[in-house]
Amino acid sequence: MRPSGRTAQQIRPVTITRNYTRHAEGSVLVEFGETKVLCTASVERGVPRFLKGKGQGWVTAEYGMLPRATHTRSDREAARGKQGGRTVEIQRLIGRSLRACVDLSALGENSITIDCDVIQADGGTRTASITGACVALVDALNWMRKLNMVKSNPLKGLVAAISVGIVNGVPVADLDYAEDSTAETDMNVVMTEAGKFIEVQGTAEGEAFSIEEMQEMLELARHSIRELMDIQKAALN
Amino acid sequence: MRPSGRTAQQIRPVTITRNYTRHAEGSVLVEFGETKVLCTASVERGVPRFLKGKGQGWVTAEYGMLPRATHTRSDREAARGKQGGRTVEIQRLIGRSLRACVDLSALGENSITIDCDVIQADGGTRTASITGACVALVDALNWMRKLNMVKSNPLKGLVAAISVGIVNGVPVADLDYAEDSTAETDMNVVMTEAGKFIEVQGTAEGEAFSIEEMQEMLELARHSIRELMDIQKAALN
Amino acid sequence: MRPSGRTAQQIRPVTITRNYTRHAEGSVLVEFGETKVLCTASVERGVPRFLKGKGQGWVTAEYGMLPRATHTRSDREAARGKQGGRTVEIQRLIGRSLRACVDLSALGENSITIDCDVIQADGGTRTASITGACVALVDALNWMRKLNMVKSNPLKGLVAAISVGIVNGVPVADLDYAEDSTAETDMNVVMTEAGKFIEVQGTAEGEAFSIEEMQEMLELARHSIRELMDIQKAALN
Amino acid sequence: MRPSGRTAQQIRPVTITRNYTRHAEGSVLVEFGETKVLCTASVERGVPRFLKGKGQGWVTAEYGMLPRATHTRSDREAARGKQGGRTVEIQRLIGRSLRACVDLSALGENSITIDCDVIQADGGTRTASITGACVALVDALNWMRKLNMVKSNPLKGLVAAISVGIVNGVPVADLDYAEDSTAETDMNVVMTEAGKFIEVQGTAEGEAFSIEEMQEMLELARHSIRELMDIQKAALN
Amino acid sequence: MRPSGRTAQQIRPVTITRNYTRHAEGSVLVEFGETKVLCTASVERGVPRFLKGKGQGWVTAEYGMLPRATHTRSDREAARGKQGGRTVEIQRLIGRSLRACVDLSALGENSITIDCDVIQADGGTRTASITGACVALVDALNWMRKLNMVKSNPLKGLVAAISVGIVNGVPVADLDYAEDSTAETDMNVVMTEAGKFIEVQGTAEGEAFSIEEMQEMLELARHSIRELMDIQKAALN
Amino acid sequence: MRPSGRTAQQIRPVTITRNYTRHAEGSVLVEFGETKVLCTASVERGVPRFLKGKGQGWVTAEYGMLPRATHTRSDREAARGKQGGRTVEIQRLIGRSLRACVDLSALGENSITIDCDVIQADGGTRTASITGACVALVDALNWMRKLNMVKSNPLKGLVAAISVGIVNGVPVADLDYAEDSTAETDMNVVMTEAGKFIEVQGTAEGEAFSIEEMQEMLELARHSIRELMDIQKAALN
Repeated sequence: MRPSGRTAQQIRPVTITRNYTRHAEGSVLVEFGETKVLCTASVERGVPRFLKGKGQGWVTAEYGMLPRATHTRSDREAARGKQGGRTVEIQRLIGRSLRACVDLSALGENSITIDCDVIQADGGTRTASITGACVALVDALNWMRKLNMVKSNPLKGLVAAISVGIVNGVPVADLDYAEDSTAETDMNVVMTEAGKFIEVQGTAEGEAFSIEEMQEMLELARHSIRELMDIQKAALN
Repeated sequence: MRPSGRTAQQIRPVTITRNYTRHAEGSVLVEFGETKVLCTASVERGVPRFLKGKGQGWVTAEYGMLPRATHTRSDREAARGKQGGRTVEIQRLIGRSLRACVDLSALGENSITIDCDVIQADGGTRTASITGACVALVDALNWMRKLNMVKSNPLKGLVAAISVGIVNGVPVADLDYAEDSTAETDMNVVMTEAGKFIEVQGTAEGEAFSIEEMQEMLELARHSIRELMDIQKAALN
Repeated sequence: MRPSGRTAQQIRPVTITRNYTRHAEGSVLVEFGETKVLCTASVERGVPRFLKGKGQGWVTAEYGMLPRATHTRSDREAARGKQGGRTVEIQRLIGRSLRACVDLSALGENSITIDCDVIQADGGTRTASITGACVALVDALNWMRKLNMVKSNPLKGLVAAISVGIVNGVPVADLDYAEDSTAETDMNVVMTEAGKFIEVQGTAEGEAFSIEEMQEMLELARHSIRELMDIQKAALN
Repeated sequence: MRPSGRTAQQIRPVTITRNYTRHAEGSVLVEFGETKVLCTASVERGVPRFLKGKGQGWVTAEYGMLPRATHTRSDREAARGKQGGRTVEIQRLIGRSLRACVDLSALGENSITIDCDVIQADGGTRTASITGACVALVDALNWMRKLNMVKSNPLKGLVAAISVGIVNGVPVADLDYAEDSTAETDMNVVMTEAGKFIEVQGTAEGEAFSIEEMQEMLELARHSIRELMDIQKAALN
Repeated sequence: MRPSGRTAQQIRPVTITRNYTRHAEGSVLVEFGETKVLCTASVERGVPRFLKGKGQGWVTAEYGMLPRATHTRSDREAARGKQGGRTVEIQRLIGRSLRACVDLSALGENSITIDCDVIQADGGTRTASITGACVALVDALNWMRKLNMVKSNPLKGLVAAISVGIVNGVPVADLDYAEDSTAETDMNVVMTEAGKFIEVQGTAEGEAFSIEEMQEMLELARHSIRELMDIQKAALN
Repeated sequence: MRPSGRTAQQIRPVTITRNYTRHAEGSVLVEFGETKVLCTASVERGVPRFLKGKGQGWVTAEYGMLPRATHTRSDREAARGKQGGRTVEIQRLIGRSLRACVDLSALGENSITIDCDVIQADGGTRTASITGACVALVDALNWMRKLNMVKSNPLKGLVAAISVGIVNGVPVADLDYAEDSTAETDMNVVMTEAGKFIEVQGTAEGEAFSIEEMQEMLELARHSIRELMDIQKAALN
């Protein structure tokens, strides 16, 4: 029995609220249970210096956690003067995952910046971020199409992400904080609509994991992500 | 006629939602029209080094704006590696205003950090922050009293804040972004329940202002802040 | 009786020494009693990026305090790697105040940087800075006119600044350090030659202040600033 | 046929040179073909603040690349004033992997810092780092045992790491730079002596990968890591 | 003939004004012609961490240049967020030179920080700094003796410094900016009262210099420093 | 008798290994006894902003020490976020010394960056760096000539450097760490093939030094540098 009373393969209630704020081209509040992340997609003309003149666009992501999104207050990164290692790691993962959704050539020399800001944290912030950000990205791409900033649709398909892990020897999906902090293994999986992998990041926090455990976790992830994509699609319709 | 259709002395609809997030000792979402700020109050035992052993507490504030809270995306301060001058100026104002609410000796050697994070900006973020933060602070102080962290009630009274300004020659209260960006003068006023001033910061953005205009603006502020305090009190009951 | 033996409305002896250093286009040592600030105005062709091609100029200010300008040594900001919040707040105030003196369009695409460096501090460094910087700015503008860098005179008029406050219940002008550290209220006022306000920043350090106290303080400020402008004009002739 | 002429499962020639420098408690030069990394293990008494008094030790890692370890010179991170995102990501991976080797309680309140500095890069620097650092760590632990700094042996077993990927549709092991820059998928795998996983980080650089491809890659990794462990053991005898 | 009309061995008029500012334990304005540096010595109880409990004191120095001390304005180091290489190099030289004056054991666990801030620059700022700072240091040590913070006199003797160089093939003393910017060789020499060397830093800016030229420069330096010490002694009496 | 058993004028065994790494245009491992420094020269088209359009090139240097190059681990400068004062001082010395080798006009608008990274330290890292970097620079210049990036040979001649000092009252050449840490005086000398001085930096660590001692040290340096140049020339043939 999981602390939340869920079954091993059961994910938390997920809600995706579009147009959550008014200025961004895409703005989504994603909730995985008590984890709440605001994902905005901002369109800007032009590309970073390293891409100038190459006829393609760019998608990047930044991640932040409000200081009191967590049980105890953590330092504000802007005040400390640098982003922590965990933040850097997460925003690089989000960025890579979203670039996998987009045909950068079809985007033209335009940039989309995804901001994922955690309002409240209860485990799984990075996977919620990716899942919500994908919807914000779709809204931003549609906005661009209305303005004829892009000719063809740059979207290659949806991506979504889930955390899976081994807690007390049992593979479970969508760990909350209570589980995450005691898990033997924690794995974040990002997948495409076609059921293929974009990112797999598994870490043995306590015990090393076997190939059989890995397969079980991947299976759980595949199943959960299909559910998440249904929710994404429902939100987009 | 103001862009929003409001009369000169009319403030925007203000809502104060307590317990907006679950971890902080005080957590308030304050809305002044389309301006939305999340204010959390975090209690920690101990005080900063400069106060150690003086038998008093500390209240401080930090302010941040989500990158896409505004019309165009602004750089993430954590990524740039420093807080901008405007941010620093605002968080110092919020901190001073809230310290005026609290008897620091009665607080004991405990610290309260107020985080004001702007989810969506439409003018008046600093006055909304102070008004909402005061309510979060009250909740945090009550939490401390329940735990017997304080003996007597450290609260000296509520504070609230409003912006007033001169737009097209007319003094108006609670400027939104459309007005703020064209105002000749912009003044932020922080007051106590007793109707006295904690902070007055008036800036001539365009034309210098006369003492008569200043008095009109202060009068508007006094009136609006009385309204805000009614809303604060209603939220607290 | 004030610690310095001055009457409530009496400012300290003020001296303004032009051409204090030799390289800057404007260089003024301003002394408000024992407070001594070196104000230099540096002219550079070109404007910051955000103004490029708009056909107007820019005036900005930076403020610093020598580490041992004060009773106890404070850290050198260059060594600590960042400017403190108080520094940022002050230099923004100085910059805004001086921009109010100048018709930025008449300045052409040129920049003037005002550096205010406190050699010795005894209260009132920000108001002394503004008062002295205005004279340095006038010298720099005259230097530009001699070189035909500007066609018409960009100067809109002088500005000067004074601190006023309430000490032991009595409104007084031009607080020195002894008064400043015990004042209930501290207000910095910046005015134009026409007797109008550019900036008013009042802070209740201890007790909140009433509207009547505010009016008394503004009256004191108006009177003192008229004196300061006489001294500015005498220095400029 | 791979650019290097290797078969799909063939790793590059690997050499591990112990005592490469003289001051560190463990010092290893590890070479995976043309990739050369100096791994040192430094023992210090005491632990970071967050572990004080908990009766356990700490193992952490830092990673750096000499500016001209690569084809074109990259900026020196010390001169730029911050470590890049890639560096942060890698050193966190190395640190986690090595902590998996060590019983932190048996280490006592002592710290071991692993520095992995890339002298020459040709792909696979992070997996070479982990493989070499493990040997340096063993040497440092043995040094501690000789000095009776630890009572029992804190080593839980060896770890080693390999990169695997899909290049031109074919799963291959130990990618060099030429392959790495064209790979569709790149996966870094860290394993224990018992053949279990510590970390799996797979990224679709181009095409998303299927579960079958993933399994093939994991199989390759398992095989290669067994080879690496033989080389580690030979070096340690 | 030198640009200033001086003979080869003639130094600029040097003045040393003690008690230039009022807060520091030692405060000296030193002028070498148009070069003007404010040197303050600040006494603090306690020593940096690396000296704690060793029963000795510390003397260190910081150097800064006001942004418009020079012909064209240079960036404020506090605003840029770091001290430049030249600044670091100079303040280390000043610190080492002054530590050579003082018996650190006799100083007890106290620290003296010397701040050298260049008000106006015309070449030779580092040598003027050392020469002036030595006098400020003597004043601070005397202040300590009056307060019985030290038992015996920590002063080992005066130090002074001069720049010498080769300009148009001729060795000259005390280069001003006009000469400094065209010198083939520039050498800074720091000496004790006993006529011995503390620091010699010679740099070939253009042509390498011979041992004979070096000897001529050292001879010039020795002669000039004797003059400077007479001026230091006159200032101290 | 010196700790190493060397005679006063005897330098440590010096080896210069060219092409030590494969990517840099010049790559040299230089060893002065147990001191080992990797010196790479990287050629880039273009010059820093301050030289643009002046028709000349630039040579600069950066210096770093691997964290465990020394007896006890020192912080990684990239992790601390800034280069230390000693590092800055050394890399400026190396840069100036190497610019003395090169006719910057003949270099065209190209830049050469010399990176000196200390793999293992045992005293004399800055002089070893200069001596090795000069050979790497020659290799890079030859590479440029082969590619016709330069028309004439920009090399003006070799430079080499040695440390000399006074240990237990005796002038000695090429101090190792054991001597360096107890030396009364430490002097670094950089010379040209023609036997002239580029840099002389002498510091009294303990006792001030006389002009006679200085002459003895310079004589030792001259003799040692002649030996070093023979080794440089042998390595280049």
